[in-house]
Amino acid sequence: MIKVLDTTLRDGAQAEGVGFSLEDKRKITHALDELGVSLIEAGNPASNPKDTAFFDERAALGELKNAALAAFGATMRPGERAERNGGLQALLSCGAEHISLFGKCSLLHVREVLRCSEEENLRIIRESVAFLSQRGRKVYFDAEHFFDGYAMDSAYAMRCLEAAALGGAEWLVLCDTNGGSLPAQVAAVVAQVRRQFPDLGIGIHCHNDCGLAVACTLAAVESGVEMVQGTMGGIGERCGNADLCTLLPLLELKMGLRCLPENRLSMLTHIARYITEVMNLSPNDRAPFVGHAAFAHKGGMHIDGVLKEPSTFEQVPPESVGNQRRFLVSDQSGRAGIYARLSRVLPDVQRDSPEMARVLARLKQKEFKGYTYENAEGSFALMALDTLGRRPRFFEVRDFHVLCNRPQNAANLEKSAQAYIKLQVDGREGINAAEGDGPVNALDLALRKTLADFYPCIHQMRLKDFKVRVLDSGGTASTVRVTIESTDGDHIWSTVGVSSNIIQACFKALVDSVDYMLTYYGPDAPGNIT
Amino acid sequence: MIKVLDTTLRDGAQAEGVGFSLEDKRKITHALDELGVSLIEAGNPASNPKDTAFFDERAALGELKNAALAAFGATMRPGERAERNGGLQALLSCGAEHISLFGKCSLLHVREVLRCSEEENLRIIRESVAFLSQRGRKVYFDAEHFFDGYAMDSAYAMRCLEAAALGGAEWLVLCDTNGGSLPAQVAAVVAQVRRQFPDLGIGIHCHNDCGLAVACTLAAVESGVEMVQGTMGGIGERCGNADLCTLLPLLELKMGLRCLPENRLSMLTHIARYITEVMNLSPNDRAPFVGHAAFAHKGGMHIDGVLKEPSTFEQVPPESVGNQRRFLVSDQSGRAGIYARLSRVLPDVQRDSPEMARVLARLKQKEFKGYTYENAEGSFALMALDTLGRRPRFFEVRDFHVLCNRPQNAANLEKSAQAYIKLQVDGREGINAAEGDGPVNALDLALRKTLADFYPCIHQMRLKDFKVRVLDSGGTASTVRVTIESTDGDHIWSTVGVSSNIIQACFKALVDSVDYMLTYYGPDAPGNIT
Repeated sequence: MIKVLDTTLRDGAQAEGVGFSLEDKRKITHALDELGVSLIEAGNPASNPKDTAFFDERAALGELKNAALAAFGATMRPGERAERNGGLQALLSCGAEHISLFGKCSLLHVREVLRCSEEENLRIIRESVAFLSQRGRKVYFDAEHFFDGYAMDSAYAMRCLEAAALGGAEWLVLCDTNGGSLPAQVAAVVAQVRRQFPDLGIGIHCHNDCGLAVACTLAAVESGVEMVQGTMGGIGERCGNADLCTLLPLLELKMGLRCLPENRLSMLTHIARYITEVMNLSPNDRAPFVGHAAFAHKGGMHIDGVLKEPSTFEQVPPESVGNQRRFLVSDQSGRAGIYARLSRVLPDVQRDSPEMARVLARLKQKEFKGYTYENAEGSFALMALDTLGRRPRFFEVRDFHVLCNRPQNAANLEKSAQAYIKLQVDGREGINAAEGDGPVNALDLALRKTLADFYPCIHQMRLKDFKVRVLDSGGTASTVRVTIESTDGDHIWSTVGVSSNIIQACFKALVDSVDYMLTYYGPDAPGNIT
Repeated sequence: MIKVLDTTLRDGAQAEGVGFSLEDKRKITHALDELGVSLIEAGNPASNPKDTAFFDERAALGELKNAALAAFGATMRPGERAERNGGLQALLSCGAEHISLFGKCSLLHVREVLRCSEEENLRIIRESVAFLSQRGRKVYFDAEHFFDGYAMDSAYAMRCLEAAALGGAEWLVLCDTNGGSLPAQVAAVVAQVRRQFPDLGIGIHCHNDCGLAVACTLAAVESGVEMVQGTMGGIGERCGNADLCTLLPLLELKMGLRCLPENRLSMLTHIARYITEVMNLSPNDRAPFVGHAAFAHKGGMHIDGVLKEPSTFEQVPPESVGNQRRFLVSDQSGRAGIYARLSRVLPDVQRDSPEMARVLARLKQKEFKGYTYENAEGSFALMALDTLGRRPRFFEVRDFHVLCNRPQNAANLEKSAQAYIKLQVDGREGINAAEGDGPVNALDLALRKTLADFYPCIHQMRLKDFKVRVLDSGGTASTVRVTIESTDGDHIWSTVGVSSNIIQACFKALVDSVDYMLTYYGPDAPGNIT
């Protein structure tokens, strides 16, 4: 069993364009726990208020099934005492049992960055680790720049590891911080460390500046490490970290090494895409194993081969990682995954029924327009009900107008937009208007205000989150996908809208959201189908 | 000297979403020639009219300085004679001296796909190669599925190579067609082939389905191949091919093997981005060596380290591949990073000056409101100029209104929004209106239409990309950050706007974009400060 430490929430946050809200961090933690990684490095409680809050409000996260949380932090600075170091204190008081503690292992960094003596750096490592280990924490010593340091002065790099071991570290994690090492180098150095520290756990943490993070990690595993570190999608500072979505299938399927609890690997594609959505990043279609194109066949000869025998042009079965085969010429969507979701909404629909075929056809049409239902169960359910003529109708939108002015006072945007809306409910007309902090807010308020006269339960509903993704590069005329998350206090649901008009995309998602609530959670929910 | 065969125009064309016009193919050929690769595999003259035309109209291409063209094609089918095979005839008559000819080397494919005898496949290979080599062509035998075939039946895979050698092939190119091989496997198999065919050239062609195409190629080089194959940006069927933009720097800078003529590696970033533009793909910012983020530093400690000594956090100097170091301005980056960026905009401002302190204070204020300048250099420059009273003013926005209706026809969103705008330029008033595919598009069109009357250079400007990020979870009243990327054909710049009104956020980014163009790239750019 290889231990897996995911550092998406810590090293991943160093990536350009990535930033997590507290709620994002919790969602990602749950998804990683579901996947079954051993450790989730969730942040540095001393570096920013969001990470501090994440650990302080640990209870809000609930129980984890598979993973343990690890906090990340630095060794103290030259001349300090551990007891006086705020960072170490924060690690101690954050409540995490597992601590990733990084220290410098390269003479270049000791001389140029720390600007202290070689002995002082060894003391820093030993005493920082000891401060935590003596207080009952499991310390994973992150040996920063270990491979560069080893190349410069191997004896000193080894002394740094010894200092950590003396301080009571249980694991030594060898980091290729600059991502400049080649696999052969990594293999040789890891083998040395393995020999010298037979009783400690050894881990590997690689960066992708040479496009070799996964290859170096595999080389380290072959040389005896028992823990791999990486991020989902390989996000991280500069070119990123080792991509767990590539690494985990390689270790399990190619090298026969167990990393996750049984039957979890087939959830990888779904979880990878979910986390990408939460991060609001564009997924990498060409990503190995989990990418949209990873099992997409375009060349005629390849398609012919796969139809005769899939293994002719597929290195592993797509189902093994929860992905789907696609033929780009004659499209054929993955029936199994869609059936699995459909049966949650409509348990009576059979897999090979005409109903299923109609939902599939509609889904393809919608996907072609830019819809994606990965993160929008609410809209998926409504689309399926609608396709089969089983969607209850609560209201009809007759008209809306939105007006948006240049705010007279840039500091105060309250009520900078107005919306008017006209609905029809059971033959009766509802018409109302509202002002808001922008066109979407105004429209949302007007919609719910108008509807609440007919369905008072709407008062309990509120919008939790709202994401916008521009799908193509048509400048300001691009197609836009809006996903919103709503709650009535008890339930949470997500809906999606697509349009080249951003207001229209938002409106579609809003209407679905209200509709979903009335269908499933309304007071006498006539459509309480599930 | 390692020979480099680029197959962007052939294997790259198999990628989802990639298609080349004849003119694209010529532009890319010239760019690759400029970079100095040895061979450009430009297409299959028997497979499509565009490739046929490319070779037929070879003269239109002009003289190449470094590269030779190679044509790609298949061996004949079972039961055929070479003289009667249209594909081989097309290869012969296309005029290319160098021919990549692929044949099957795996028993699985002989049995399941070709469905012929083992001996017949050997005859196919031998006679197809001989047909071309006897007519004076240099044949590169692409041994399809060689590694999978070798794993299944090594003796048969070797007999396929022998058949090609008997036919007169000068090069044997070992292909990991499904991309499922691990580097150690590749190294061992290549070493065997190297021993058995000491007098032929051996090449390697890897796919990236395991994220290991580059690593496997390096392993093959270590085992003695003299030719590497790959594509620019790693594009290709499914997960793509070995990325030459990663491979070439590794071979030259890390392994000390010459691949390109002298002083060409420093053109790599420029040529990689140019080719990506021609292909109309979004560049991968995280690509090793050539990516926009490859030398981008975000963490404060990393920026501090790089400022003290670049090699502390850079595996190679960015200039060696023609890329640039960037300090991302963020709450993690501290004073050093901001100063580094400010000095590019205003070289006369000193690090510890009151000016620097004012820019820092303003930046913090802006970040608190949700701005981020890490990928919005344009707005950063304008903000700094503005703070120090040095921002030129080209126009003033007096008023705008945007009107957005429920589209009457959901399928046709063209002109579903109208915008009116009033500007003041040098005491004169400009007023105009436009319709668009949504409120942002309408506002963008109205702004540029109104301004172009005063500044005709605005006509050259267009929006390249547009991103929206919702910052907090305030439902539809959330704060929204919009980043847009603009170009005038020569330059690219990014700007940012933040507001709880999405229209207002877009408008701010649009205004900055126009302002930045007038400041730095206008015809008599009074603010051509840098």
